[in-house]
Amino acid sequence: MSQRKMRLGAFIMATGHHVAAWRHPGSQADSGTNIDHYIEVAQTAERGLFDQVFVADSPGLQYKGDDEALRRQGRVSYFEPVTLWAALAAVTKHIGFVATASTTYEDPYLLARKFASLDHISKGRAAWNVVTTSADNVHGNFGLEAHPDPAVRYERAHEFVDVVKGLWDSYDDDAFLRDQASGVYFDPQKLHALNHVGKHFRVKGPLNIGRPPQGHPVIVQAGSSEDGKELAAATAEAIFAAWTSLGEAQAFYRDVKGRMAKYGRRPEQLLVLPGISPVIGRTEDEAKAKWAELQGLIHPAVGLNTLASFWPIAELRRFELDAPPPWYPEPPKGINSRAHVVIELARREKFTVRQLYEYLAGARGHWVVVGTPQTIADRMQEWFENGAADGFNVMPPVLPQSLNEFVELVVPELQRRGLFRTAYEGRTLRENLGLERPASRYTASAQELAA
Amino acid sequence: MSQRKMRLGAFIMATGHHVAAWRHPGSQADSGTNIDHYIEVAQTAERGLFDQVFVADSPGLQYKGDDEALRRQGRVSYFEPVTLWAALAAVTKHIGFVATASTTYEDPYLLARKFASLDHISKGRAAWNVVTTSADNVHGNFGLEAHPDPAVRYERAHEFVDVVKGLWDSYDDDAFLRDQASGVYFDPQKLHALNHVGKHFRVKGPLNIGRPPQGHPVIVQAGSSEDGKELAAATAEAIFAAWTSLGEAQAFYRDVKGRMAKYGRRPEQLLVLPGISPVIGRTEDEAKAKWAELQGLIHPAVGLNTLASFWPIAELRRFELDAPPPWYPEPPKGINSRAHVVIELARREKFTVRQLYEYLAGARGHWVVVGTPQTIADRMQEWFENGAADGFNVMPPVLPQSLNEFVELVVPELQRRGLFRTAYEGRTLRENLGLERPASRYTASAQELAA
Repeated sequence: MSQRKMRLGAFIMATGHHVAAWRHPGSQADSGTNIDHYIEVAQTAERGLFDQVFVADSPGLQYKGDDEALRRQGRVSYFEPVTLWAALAAVTKHIGFVATASTTYEDPYLLARKFASLDHISKGRAAWNVVTTSADNVHGNFGLEAHPDPAVRYERAHEFVDVVKGLWDSYDDDAFLRDQASGVYFDPQKLHALNHVGKHFRVKGPLNIGRPPQGHPVIVQAGSSEDGKELAAATAEAIFAAWTSLGEAQAFYRDVKGRMAKYGRRPEQLLVLPGISPVIGRTEDEAKAKWAELQGLIHPAVGLNTLASFWPIAELRRFELDAPPPWYPEPPKGINSRAHVVIELARREKFTVRQLYEYLAGARGHWVVVGTPQTIADRMQEWFENGAADGFNVMPPVLPQSLNEFVELVVPELQRRGLFRTAYEGRTLRENLGLERPASRYTASAQELAA
Repeated sequence: MSQRKMRLGAFIMATGHHVAAWRHPGSQADSGTNIDHYIEVAQTAERGLFDQVFVADSPGLQYKGDDEALRRQGRVSYFEPVTLWAALAAVTKHIGFVATASTTYEDPYLLARKFASLDHISKGRAAWNVVTTSADNVHGNFGLEAHPDPAVRYERAHEFVDVVKGLWDSYDDDAFLRDQASGVYFDPQKLHALNHVGKHFRVKGPLNIGRPPQGHPVIVQAGSSEDGKELAAATAEAIFAAWTSLGEAQAFYRDVKGRMAKYGRRPEQLLVLPGISPVIGRTEDEAKAKWAELQGLIHPAVGLNTLASFWPIAELRRFELDAPPPWYPEPPKGINSRAHVVIELARREKFTVRQLYEYLAGARGHWVVVGTPQTIADRMQEWFENGAADGFNVMPPVLPQSLNEFVELVVPELQRRGLFRTAYEGRTLRENLGLERPASRYTASAQELAA
């Protein structure tokens, strides 16, 4: 039996995950809308045999804080994920594409269609990161008076995903004959209207595109709230997580996999991929110097802004930078549990305001590992072999530089240890991730009836 | 002064415009979801120095008729246009991409965003064909009880286009400084929230992507109803038309350009591009034989189905194929004026049922020209030089074969006559089409205030 292998995704923020990345000489400052930059990054990740690249998304400008922070932050103009990945699919062959799209603000028919299209364009390399959109400032772009509550958003999300999967099954895999001689193009018996009528949606169908090469694009989820874990256990095939200690990561891994049985699913049908933001040096000192260089690029206004979801920005500006915050907020209820982690950490470690924002600046509270390729591989191996991870969502602090370093230095180290592939195993993202191709709901029913 | 040049677009139906194209050996039968086919076609069109490629679209399966016709027609599974063009943008350099998208069934924020993204990905080669969706069988995909009336659809379309243009102007062209040394990324004074409140939409904005390279992607319109012409006169920069005689085409050209002044626009700001479906032979006899071969591939069920929007399909099946229809319907009011043309033609020419469907089978009632490169160029030149056309939307009957023939045989003939470019003039689609780059509504107001 072959050794279990790590799954690796590259989580691409345009200029890099560090909040000051765009100021670093190793970044491409205009990369949010620079297609050549993304082509370079995707091809580098493919050279490194990554399973997938991933982009986060919000259907609106995500911003809380003041103008001084706004003018200094580099994340205000960026590609729409599905169009971006469609372009990169044409100039890559193996790597998968995880696009984030919101069940709160998109339409299920149009979303099913664009992801099916991406899966055909990429010949089976598409994945959908299902989000309910936590930002509370985008509803105005869609004519809504308020951002829906998490309970409503997650209820809608469950129904939305079910509708989308049903639409993807509109055509059976073998619906198309395309027999030029007889003139029969396809079998209408193998075309199914969904006729969905639910609480949030009425969708007739069928979809106007054949079943995706992967059956369904891979379903990805992120976030670790109770609702989020339940949605992941019910529907996701990969989940991104944000933990900074082995113990927390192990608990999450057990928790989310333990919820799957009640949905008739097995633990191996869901890959848990914690985020890791590696700051790589050939020596520990070089790595530390790189980290210090990045932290030194943070303007205090930008730093304080990373704390704006915890403290009102007007109050924050009156806090002393080099003392602990004078008070701590109650974390929000159930919405975004990274907030809990951050606030607990601040209390426990008695971080100063500056230390706190420097902690968040690395990768917004995700796990930052500063070290050599060997020490970074050690930490990844520890999590991978101790029930904390099936692989990782690698979050390069600076792009393209940090991804280049990861591919040149860390990937070979993981390969030497037998932890990572030396060639792509399959043709589709599902095949590379070791995930089953789902049967159509119509074919499956027919099989069950026959059984 | 240089000679006025023809604009050429390639109107791509997956296997070709002829209703039986997919059965022809010169077509790629699975091309609706075959990305390699589209790459080949786009690169051929670019080799032929076409301004743009174009796909029609409907957000749902367009179908009227019976199962026998359905199983024999090849237009049931196809890419979503914007994802398709994003992929092709990455493997081409000059050609523009016209994607159809519906103002009746899409959302203005998401649509503005995906077209802005396509314009950045293609470095200024995106265009939006604005349609209100005439198909009356897709509303069920979007939870609606009925297809909205034309008046409502066009009212919504005017507001939709205005909102989308406003969102494209969210960032001024010079909003981004990206000064790594000082840490200033952009100027928030040059970011504008739209705050649109209208009858159909409330959209706050701003858009989360910088102003498109073209300012706005090129706005295209099709259809020749009264409402359609008015929308085109108000907003379009290119209009597709379907005429089969010089006189009709001239009248339309004058009509639509004459409506522009009341919107403060000049005639040269709108390019009129009639459709032409060329069946090309090296001799007239070869061309006629090609046409006959294609017509011979039409199964009567498919042929009758092309008439299903004029006569109920159950009645059609009782008509004699080789006699004129026993009765003629009243054309629908104002919706789709191609219907008027077809019914008038059937009466005037006393077409049999078979002749009528063979007429429509070529390119659904568009202008079919069967001939040599010289005679085809003659007809195009006649329309171009006599106030009927600024160029053409070329509709290859069979793909990829007929486009290859057009590029190899007709393009050189047009070039010899000085009617068509011998190299791309500009970098963007606007530059190639000779269309101005629109100023931002915010910058324009500032200029007017200063004046």
